[in-house]
Amino acid sequence: MFKSSEAVEKLITNLSRLPGIGRKTAGRLAFHLLKVPKEEALELAAAITDIKEKVGFCSICNNISESDPCYICANPDRKTDTICVVEEAVDLAALDRAEGYNGLYHVLGGRISPLDGIGPDDLKIKELLARIDSKVKEIIIATNPNVEGEATALYLARLLKPLGIRTTRIARGLPVGSDLEYADGMTISRALEGRQEI
Amino acid sequence: MFKSSEAVEKLITNLSRLPGIGRKTAGRLAFHLLKVPKEEALELAAAITDIKEKVGFCSICNNISESDPCYICANPDRKTDTICVVEEAVDLAALDRAEGYNGLYHVLGGRISPLDGIGPDDLKIKELLARIDSKVKEIIIATNPNVEGEATALYLARLLKPLGIRTTRIARGLPVGSDLEYADGMTISRALEGRQEI
Repeated sequence: MFKSSEAVEKLITNLSRLPGIGRKTAGRLAFHLLKVPKEEALELAAAITDIKEKVGFCSICNNISESDPCYICANPDRKTDTICVVEEAVDLAALDRAEGYNGLYHVLGGRISPLDGIGPDDLKIKELLARIDSKVKEIIIATNPNVEGEATALYLARLLKPLGIRTTRIARGLPVGSDLEYADGMTISRALEGRQEI
Repeated sequence: MFKSSEAVEKLITNLSRLPGIGRKTAGRLAFHLLKVPKEEALELAAAITDIKEKVGFCSICNNISESDPCYICANPDRKTDTICVVEEAVDLAALDRAEGYNGLYHVLGGRISPLDGIGPDDLKIKELLARIDSKVKEIIIATNPNVEGEATALYLARLLKPLGIRTTRIARGLPVGSDLEYADGMTISRALEGRQEI
């Protein structure tokens, strides 16, 4: 309890609700905000308010967006025959920063995780199926390469295969710039499985 | 650059200005704020605005406060013959949470640190000297036990000693609950120097 000021105490309580921020870090942040110029703190407050007022979801791909459709779905230069399925909008952003893909995306809004009580119906899977028409030639499943991500990928593949659409999974292997010496066994196994002719 | 939403990009930029928060953490926080109920995000924004609108400094001790004088200086039950000098308002809060002190405080607003360009004139030292009258019997210097804190303590002691006021420094030694085995040499030396009869 910070007795000198109720407002500071309230800010600490609010900040410590953020993920990865405990009471001590929240205190440090609150004192930092006390010291910075007023405009800088108000800019942060306005930015927080803004995302709640302006940001919504694309009705086509479920990406976060200020416009509907989002800048990807609205882009006529994108190839509409491929849909890359990701868990979250951050994953879409990471893929879009990397080069090499010019198709569309679909954001599931999570991954199947029975331990967290998240089943297929909690994800935008129905919406994905509804998007698939005769133009779509390939679905790339780019869920994260961990237990839940792989389970989600498997689930989707089983749904999509009967529709006769090519369903692919992004490659698991050694990250570029890494050392074989320090790689874990699972990654090395996947890298061997996925080997290609050079 | 987060292309899906300018508002999210702006929030990430603003969050990554906070100490200890890089762009990746800022991104995670921004996405968390996108997901939480609107009220929770707006409460955080309001709390940030509030500290800049409501919180000021006590004109006597320089503690952060919503009232002037602060709750400590305004408390008639506090002993006015002792002033405990600290670097920051957080230090005051830590001392005040611990039991054993019922006197007044003085917040310097930092410590002497030539490397950061902070000299004695940048701290509330003049204000401390101005507060000292015939009622004050002891000044406890509770700056942090690191290089800059010790230098600041020494500087203050040299200023205060000629005034004939008892000037003390909080004890440096082994933290309660710690192990001698893992303590650093400097701390052990100080613990030996400050030994007392049992």
